[in-house]
Amino acid sequence: MVVVRHCGYLTVPNCPLLNGEFTLGVAVVKMRNPPVNSLSLEFLTELLISLEKLENDKTFHGIIITSDCPGIFSAGLDLTEMCGRDPEHYAEYWKAVQEMWLRFYLSNLVVIAAINGVSPAGGCLLSLTCDYRVLANNPKYAIGLNETLLGIVAPFWFKDTLVNTIGHRSAERALQLGLLFPPAEALRVGMVDQVMPEDQVQSTARSVMAQWLDIPDHARQLTKTLMRKPTADRLLTERDADIQNFVRFICRDSIQKSLHAYLEKLKQKKG
Amino acid sequence: MVVVRHCGYLTVPNCPLLNGEFTLGVAVVKMRNPPVNSLSLEFLTELLISLEKLENDKTFHGIIITSDCPGIFSAGLDLTEMCGRDPEHYAEYWKAVQEMWLRFYLSNLVVIAAINGVSPAGGCLLSLTCDYRVLANNPKYAIGLNETLLGIVAPFWFKDTLVNTIGHRSAERALQLGLLFPPAEALRVGMVDQVMPEDQVQSTARSVMAQWLDIPDHARQLTKTLMRKPTADRLLTERDADIQNFVRFICRDSIQKSLHAYLEKLKQKKG
Amino acid sequence: MVVVRHCGYLTVPNCPLLNGEFTLGVAVVKMRNPPVNSLSLEFLTELLISLEKLENDKTFHGIIITSDCPGIFSAGLDLTEMCGRDPEHYAEYWKAVQEMWLRFYLSNLVVIAAINGVSPAGGCLLSLTCDYRVLANNPKYAIGLNETLLGIVAPFWFKDTLVNTIGHRSAERALQLGLLFPPAEALRVGMVDQVMPEDQVQSTARSVMAQWLDIPDHARQLTKTLMRKPTADRLLTERDADIQNFVRFICRDSIQKSLHAYLEKLKQKKG
Repeated sequence: MVVVRHCGYLTVPNCPLLNGEFTLGVAVVKMRNPPVNSLSLEFLTELLISLEKLENDKTFHGIIITSDCPGIFSAGLDLTEMCGRDPEHYAEYWKAVQEMWLRFYLSNLVVIAAINGVSPAGGCLLSLTCDYRVLANNPKYAIGLNETLLGIVAPFWFKDTLVNTIGHRSAERALQLGLLFPPAEALRVGMVDQVMPEDQVQSTARSVMAQWLDIPDHARQLTKTLMRKPTADRLLTERDADIQNFVRFICRDSIQKSLHAYLEKLKQKKG
Repeated sequence: MVVVRHCGYLTVPNCPLLNGEFTLGVAVVKMRNPPVNSLSLEFLTELLISLEKLENDKTFHGIIITSDCPGIFSAGLDLTEMCGRDPEHYAEYWKAVQEMWLRFYLSNLVVIAAINGVSPAGGCLLSLTCDYRVLANNPKYAIGLNETLLGIVAPFWFKDTLVNTIGHRSAERALQLGLLFPPAEALRVGMVDQVMPEDQVQSTARSVMAQWLDIPDHARQLTKTLMRKPTADRLLTERDADIQNFVRFICRDSIQKSLHAYLEKLKQKKG
Repeated sequence: MVVVRHCGYLTVPNCPLLNGEFTLGVAVVKMRNPPVNSLSLEFLTELLISLEKLENDKTFHGIIITSDCPGIFSAGLDLTEMCGRDPEHYAEYWKAVQEMWLRFYLSNLVVIAAINGVSPAGGCLLSLTCDYRVLANNPKYAIGLNETLLGIVAPFWFKDTLVNTIGHRSAERALQLGLLFPPAEALRVGMVDQVMPEDQVQSTARSVMAQWLDIPDHARQLTKTLMRKPTADRLLTERDADIQNFVRFICRDSIQKSLHAYLEKLKQKKG
């Protein structure tokens, strides 16, 4: 369960930055938590530590986040963290999920998702926190917040992030129906910014990154904050209440039962 | 002036619902207030009673709302309720219009509009409260909030509903110009979700309904509330002020005069 | 440095207005502040005085705003007003920029932009305050809020106006990257409403104006206010703080240095 950090340096041919004081460093963060990059508590913690290190290392100005697990970007939240545990654990886990969203959504770095696999629920959320999304053109690589299909409800900040990305009406329909969009539809609805042949996803992410790094960094960061702070503030002011809501919801017998049934089904599939 | 309620039962072939405790019942509500399905006080009251009965009857999980008046879905608010009456009547009427919007917009049932005729102003609003809109592909069946054409102004919650559906810029233009969109344009701007040949509108509404009922009901309802409650709350917290605004506006001599002139024109057309 | 005001009268063939008490007058405001229609303090003041006169003159119900400088609609804010002056001057200038936005965005007149040249930054903002935008189909005539490219940040009300026009996600990307959209892209993203051959821009603006003036004026004005007041109120309640923010930001050594460098580059180009 390791995050492989591979550092690449881009050559940016034409860079009218205000000053040349920073190096143009891009980290490629490959998620490797087999088999499906579940966002377990341990994995989320590692992801956040990596992000923090990269943000504190002046060498880096951009991250490309991608998967090292074939066919799966990330399967989303780890249901085993939400099933058969005690309330304290659920609270701790949910706080880590909030933290992931807050830190990625507001990161000063340029964050680009090179989505090389399916990305339901929390996997989709992670990609929605990025500044740009490139999706591999494979009909199996569906993306969406499909929580309702499991009988659970995306919290308001998942919803806000989706509304910010694809607009109110599309979000309303997608969230209620738990839609998972294949690449062509994902592009049309605005869930991703670009769909590319699978073998060009990484190189496309790199050239898009070059375009973003070409912008004076401080002005770009302030503009990102301008756009995203109000949405993040909604969670920040209700963070504890949101944790309590989650714990109360996930502790319900009916929810535990359906998550358990779902996990059993997954195990049988594997077995 | 009757709402015909026809109960149909859908066959849903593949239903991975959390539990099978509810029957898959869909009510088809056909509006029959000839000649144009005006939303009179009496008709609104009947519509609301029908909705409440269906919501309380555990047999039903979805409503398809459609018209029994050829060529007209609903002509919208009944101008005779807004012209030549006393302020108490205007207040009572407006409260019923608010109630229609609130109850349909937040209904726990899946509500799908099978729009088989023209739907201006209040008729359009009714369809905008639904979860999905299928419009018959007849160039005469225009849809839109055309209040300005009558010299009146859509209240803020009509506006909010439209912005939620087609976005701020399209709503700004459509509301100011009182645009009535023919089917192709209605689809393009997002006023409706699907345009179908007239004889397939009902069957399309049914198969879309099957897709919506396929979702675990409780999670879908909570998600709908998550999306719509903030918009509904805006009216709920200003409901009395909104009634007073309406009464004050509609009592103006200039407004009464132009509504009267418009009604006379309609009568001459008929005569 | 003059605003040429040319008064034209439209013939509106079919005008179902509520009453015929107003004349159908349209003013064509041609901006002439060579070479690039910079929005200097003096020019902004003149523009605002012209707007006020037109609003107080009952003859006029619409303005077409266009440029008299070949190839440039407006280059936007005048950097010489923001560079090498004292804080009092910056505050006065910023107040005038706010005033332009507030007055045009909320104008009771129908305001249509006939964009016959490039319109970056403040030039774009001016066009975004209009009710409708027609852009000449010349690949050089790019439009956008490109502030980040100069190392500065669009204030929140520029951002709000852009979000209202093209939606949250497109605005987020456009603002961070400082995108200048050529006509085809500007149309696709919704930055303008129509792209026309250069020699038809003025006539198109006139016929669009006829459509807008065809709407009962009072109802249209109230609807415009309904749509735009909440956005304008955000600035109105924070107007002084916004001025102070601007002054503090623009007084920074690093910002002054980069604006100065940019101005020097512009001078060399000309020279």
